Amino acid sequence: MTRPPRDIEELIDLMARLPGLGPRSARRAVLQMIRKRALLLIPLADAMRNVAVSARECVSCGNVCTSELCDICTSEKRATGEICIVEDVADLWAMERAGVFRGRYHVLGGTLSALDSIGPDELRIPRLIERIRHEAVSEVILALNATVDGLTTAHYIAEQLEPMGITVTSLAQGVPVGGELDYLDDGTISAAMRARRAL
Amino acid sequence: MTRPPRDIEELIDLMARLPGLGPRSARRAVLQMIRKRALLLIPLADAMRNVAVSARECVSCGNVCTSELCDICTSEKRATGEICIVEDVADLWAMERAGVFRGRYHVLGGTLSALDSIGPDELRIPRLIERIRHEAVSEVILALNATVDGLTTAHYIAEQLEPMGITVTSLAQGVPVGGELDYLDDGTISAAMRARRAL
Repeated sequence: MTRPPRDIEELIDLMARLPGLGPRSARRAVLQMIRKRALLLIPLADAMRNVAVSARECVSCGNVCTSELCDICTSEKRATGEICIVEDVADLWAMERAGVFRGRYHVLGGTLSALDSIGPDELRIPRLIERIRHEAVSEVILALNATVDGLTTAHYIAEQLEPMGITVTSLAQGVPVGGELDYLDDGTISAAMRARRAL
Repeated sequence: MTRPPRDIEELIDLMARLPGLGPRSARRAVLQMIRKRALLLIPLADAMRNVAVSARECVSCGNVCTSELCDICTSEKRATGEICIVEDVADLWAMERAGVFRGRYHVLGGTLSALDSIGPDELRIPRLIERIRHEAVSEVILALNATVDGLTTAHYIAEQLEPMGITVTSLAQGVPVGGELDYLDDGTISAAMRARRAL
């Protein structure tokens, strides 16, 4: 068996480590890049170089940015006193795309997990407490994933913030927009039933 | 809505152009790269640079390689007089992984397609005829995909090579190893039935 040239195999191995790609899709992606050298391969290499140099973590909220503080933390418009807590930067981006929240964020960097031995200090929770002490925060909105670990983390944070007199809320659970009851799991239907409201 | 930093958005857009990745998986991949800058992002940028400089097409068979001729075309051991014709380099790699063919390859770079107006000259077919005239070729094995375009291309090539007195064969069609009849399409079952053999 003759293997692909070493440079190319190395690139395939690295690509296969990305989430959502396996060896087969990594091979297809690399062949596509080689076919489109000027349009894809070289621009990708350059873009990665740029991001490797410029990307950093916002020291305040943990967002990905290119300076010490991210655009959201430096924008005076977003000093609404509301902090939305998300698990990671992808969730922050999803919230921004929805365009419904005008305050600031706090990116935990994961959830509490006994199994993976992730405690509060492995997350950005101490930094959250510190922010609440020094910023004028009126409400903390928990926008964590509706998984077991997400719920555990939400309860832990709510407990920590209660004595500080902060209003803690959480995203509503219920039927997603466009969702069909027949395709929803029982847990979602019961949550939506419990939280029903007057029309 | 605050968008991700421009460098990062650019990288996401490029990644989303790769086959098998959409905007969502591109975002996840880029965040993973940023998290693993030293282990993933910088090595990927370097590997892409290397491939952009070194990768080229074998002038004889169309394989991806780093010199004028690929390792298979330069290896004397593989001058068996058999040429295996494949659609693209991914198929050549698949054949090599199977490790069952000891001859040389010819990568067409696609299939004939009236719809996409791809004729013999858009593929590496003239170069194939030339190879057969100048190399000592005893057998041409067609290992094209079992699609309509693949079959059309196989028939076209067989017709071209017939007057040259070359044996043209094709991969057998039938039940895949580990395949269950109940899950196979009718076409595969009838092909396997027609090509049945004595045990």
